[in-house]
Amino acid sequence: MTDKLIIFDTTLRDGEQSPGASMTRDEKLRIARQLERLRVDVIEAGFAASSNGDFEAVKSIADAIKESTVCSLARANDRDIGRAAEALKGAARSRIHTFIATSELHMEKKLRMTREQVLEQARLSVRFARNLCGDIEFSPEDGYRSDFDFLCRVLEAVIDEGATTLNIPDTVGYAVPELYGDFIRRLRERVPNSDKAIWSVHCHNDLGMAVANSLAGVKIGGARQVECTINGLGERAGNCSLEEIVMAVRTRRDYFGLDLGIDTTQIVPASRMVSQTTGFVVQPNKAVVGANAFAHASGIHQDGVLKARDTYEIMRAEDVGWAANKIVLGKLSGRNAFKQRLQELGVQMDSESEINAAFARFKDLADRKSEIFDEDIIALVSDESVTAEQEHYRLLSLAQHSEMGERPHAKVSFSAGGVEHHADSDGNGPVDASLKAIESKVKSGAEMMLYSVNAITSGSTESQGEVTVRLQHGGRVVNGVGADPDIVVASAKAYLSALNKLHSAADRVAAQG
Amino acid sequence: MTDKLIIFDTTLRDGEQSPGASMTRDEKLRIARQLERLRVDVIEAGFAASSNGDFEAVKSIADAIKESTVCSLARANDRDIGRAAEALKGAARSRIHTFIATSELHMEKKLRMTREQVLEQARLSVRFARNLCGDIEFSPEDGYRSDFDFLCRVLEAVIDEGATTLNIPDTVGYAVPELYGDFIRRLRERVPNSDKAIWSVHCHNDLGMAVANSLAGVKIGGARQVECTINGLGERAGNCSLEEIVMAVRTRRDYFGLDLGIDTTQIVPASRMVSQTTGFVVQPNKAVVGANAFAHASGIHQDGVLKARDTYEIMRAEDVGWAANKIVLGKLSGRNAFKQRLQELGVQMDSESEINAAFARFKDLADRKSEIFDEDIIALVSDESVTAEQEHYRLLSLAQHSEMGERPHAKVSFSAGGVEHHADSDGNGPVDASLKAIESKVKSGAEMMLYSVNAITSGSTESQGEVTVRLQHGGRVVNGVGADPDIVVASAKAYLSALNKLHSAADRVAAQG
Repeated sequence: MTDKLIIFDTTLRDGEQSPGASMTRDEKLRIARQLERLRVDVIEAGFAASSNGDFEAVKSIADAIKESTVCSLARANDRDIGRAAEALKGAARSRIHTFIATSELHMEKKLRMTREQVLEQARLSVRFARNLCGDIEFSPEDGYRSDFDFLCRVLEAVIDEGATTLNIPDTVGYAVPELYGDFIRRLRERVPNSDKAIWSVHCHNDLGMAVANSLAGVKIGGARQVECTINGLGERAGNCSLEEIVMAVRTRRDYFGLDLGIDTTQIVPASRMVSQTTGFVVQPNKAVVGANAFAHASGIHQDGVLKARDTYEIMRAEDVGWAANKIVLGKLSGRNAFKQRLQELGVQMDSESEINAAFARFKDLADRKSEIFDEDIIALVSDESVTAEQEHYRLLSLAQHSEMGERPHAKVSFSAGGVEHHADSDGNGPVDASLKAIESKVKSGAEMMLYSVNAITSGSTESQGEVTVRLQHGGRVVNGVGADPDIVVASAKAYLSALNKLHSAADRVAAQG
Repeated sequence: MTDKLIIFDTTLRDGEQSPGASMTRDEKLRIARQLERLRVDVIEAGFAASSNGDFEAVKSIADAIKESTVCSLARANDRDIGRAAEALKGAARSRIHTFIATSELHMEKKLRMTREQVLEQARLSVRFARNLCGDIEFSPEDGYRSDFDFLCRVLEAVIDEGATTLNIPDTVGYAVPELYGDFIRRLRERVPNSDKAIWSVHCHNDLGMAVANSLAGVKIGGARQVECTINGLGERAGNCSLEEIVMAVRTRRDYFGLDLGIDTTQIVPASRMVSQTTGFVVQPNKAVVGANAFAHASGIHQDGVLKARDTYEIMRAEDVGWAANKIVLGKLSGRNAFKQRLQELGVQMDSESEINAAFARFKDLADRKSEIFDEDIIALVSDESVTAEQEHYRLLSLAQHSEMGERPHAKVSFSAGGVEHHADSDGNGPVDASLKAIESKVKSGAEMMLYSVNAITSGSTESQGEVTVRLQHGGRVVNGVGADPDIVVASAKAYLSALNKLHSAADRVAAQG
């Protein structure tokens, strides 16, 4: 048993499965690079066999990432495992993560397989995978609700076949810390070859205890890997939060006594990137990464904090990457200053023409907004890469007018596959009118599931608005994000960005929870 | 030891202390009524001695609430306790909650008192309080970081003086479940008269473990009261979430074996009301009350869920008050239908003239929006009561225009103390222009700390926008909320609502965390 805790990030796989959080390949690659800067040990990049899009995403991440191990999920069958191995071919370090459900409920209702069939399939799949990759993780889905003896037989068998990590998911978020910790401990005691693998925990937050359950799995159970996501992103109430588990282990090192490889100063930038990309807001009272998590971040200093910082603070904001907003650039900043700031922010651009395009947008923004903050630059670049990637639809111009007592009206011009369209419409408000104008030509039939706006840079009435629009059509859910100092323009950009995603992507297979 | 778990809600006290979450008296009263419908055992209504405003809020809640015990916080001194007793005079059931810090750090740095002085003050305060009220709760602030022997002496002394509930706060969110549970257990074993009081837990979420710590205090420690807030609202990362603790105890009744008095179907309505009132968004992946917490709420059905619901769900969405949006009213609905719907939604209006004013706004909204949902009605009524309360500033008209390539422009008319003002301005966007126009006349000098928008009713491009504006001025932080189908109008309303709050309220004393 080592005293290093392995951080396995599954933002790009289990997190992305959250309804509305699906990401493009370029978005996933950008987040993977941030996870590498955060120094996570393992990046689960996706589920290669689920779609061609996800295969490509896993492949580009495997090709780009040098420091972290890159992992792909695969169901316990040869085709899935083969696709995972193929996608991971270019990786410096790779892992295949295969799974099959072991609870009676899942075997009977979902898989329609007997225990013996499941055991045999688990065994054969790990054997097959082990011939393709030296680093194999196995998960018994819904493990925590599985029959204990049967689960032990499955785990013993897959260790015999060469599984190097055993991950025990609490798939439905049903566990309580002392019970879950004890469950992991008993598994490790009972499985005769348990010392030949590293044990891992994977907890969901349905009852608000994912972090505590994971830590109990570590402290009481002896697990040495935690699966988690940035911002606790994930289906339903989400997964264990990376930022919480990392800061708990670090702040309570006196109790856990474990080392971490994480660069904690990259936590807040990672949180913002994931939130901006998926449109999933982080609530202000979220631990570690919420806007209020540190007193000073909200501009409020309590009497006690002024007298002695540690009366109310157990962590330092700067340790997790909170920094005051800095005015970094303005109208007069040149291309070199912009390029250097991009590098400092960890934004990687692949070509000079990409940098030029981003710089042109920066100059355009600087004409309309006097102070440009780091967040503005990140939004600008995100915006850029989304449109650059799949710009079937593109906003050309927008004019709108509203007056209390009259019906708001908007005129929008946009291109669709190179053809210009001009549309106008009234609506309940100027945003509604603008989107109705676009929809009158596009006729997507998509249903809007979410519309939200956040100011990108707080502390200024001159903030840019960042709008997220979530559309549903034909069983698919996509997010579009748009940023602009004009909230109506930002909304139209977000709507077109969502339409672009609906226009492009392919269907996907559901993975494990 | 009873097997009933007492739910002590402190949304209106510890929750309200969160920077930016301060509420008016009417807002607090409306939330208190919802907490009563939720059947919480104790409502901590505020901190009566902190300001005249909070005194009035505690008093109106004490006068209005019949089913729940109403509690006021008080520092351990006669003046604070006297004010609490006075504010609670009209209550059917009342409790005084007094506190003093017992950790070395807090005693030395914040209180500048010796151990003996703190012990004596705790003792005298509880004695004084007990003469005014039969139900006394005592909290040793930062109890979890206090010297164990000293803490035991203090607790023994206050039980002797008649404290009926002992609450042990983990003020800085530093605890780990098994340690905190064990801490409560050892306290109860060591304090000789511990069986004469009910033990309570109060946990903060800085490391993401508030719920698990509270439950360990209950299960391992034997506490029978949990202090919590709706949506986990509270300073920094917030308090233990009421919805999570309640659903954990209920879903895992097999393990906890405890009864609850809570009507869980009121959880989601309570969550929405608190979020709308404070402007603190609930993230989609929040347990129980997040938009994605239940698969079906997001419109996505996984294969497994279709085959057998309990493969992925351990709670039922309807049990916590999730219901599909219903079209409840439209343009042709009459006053009686509106009034009846208000009653069904649990909105209480004190006079016919209030109902008439709300109905007039409803008709106005129905002219501009074809389908009126429950959320629209709640927003309408919230909006109403905020302006009715303190309408120094009031929006009269707004016209704005924006066009890509030109500078957005807005003309705003509003009244200030009955006097009409007309202003116009340009800005980075139409919202910025509108707020700048208002500010050009008001000259508040307030700094904007937050601007956020949410669609009130999802699933429709015709949603109303609900805008929250948070302003800071002279050390005070206020929220304004405004709703309108036109996002620019909603923003102007929200800005004026925040200015109204800045214009009225008084300063406050900081309470315990």
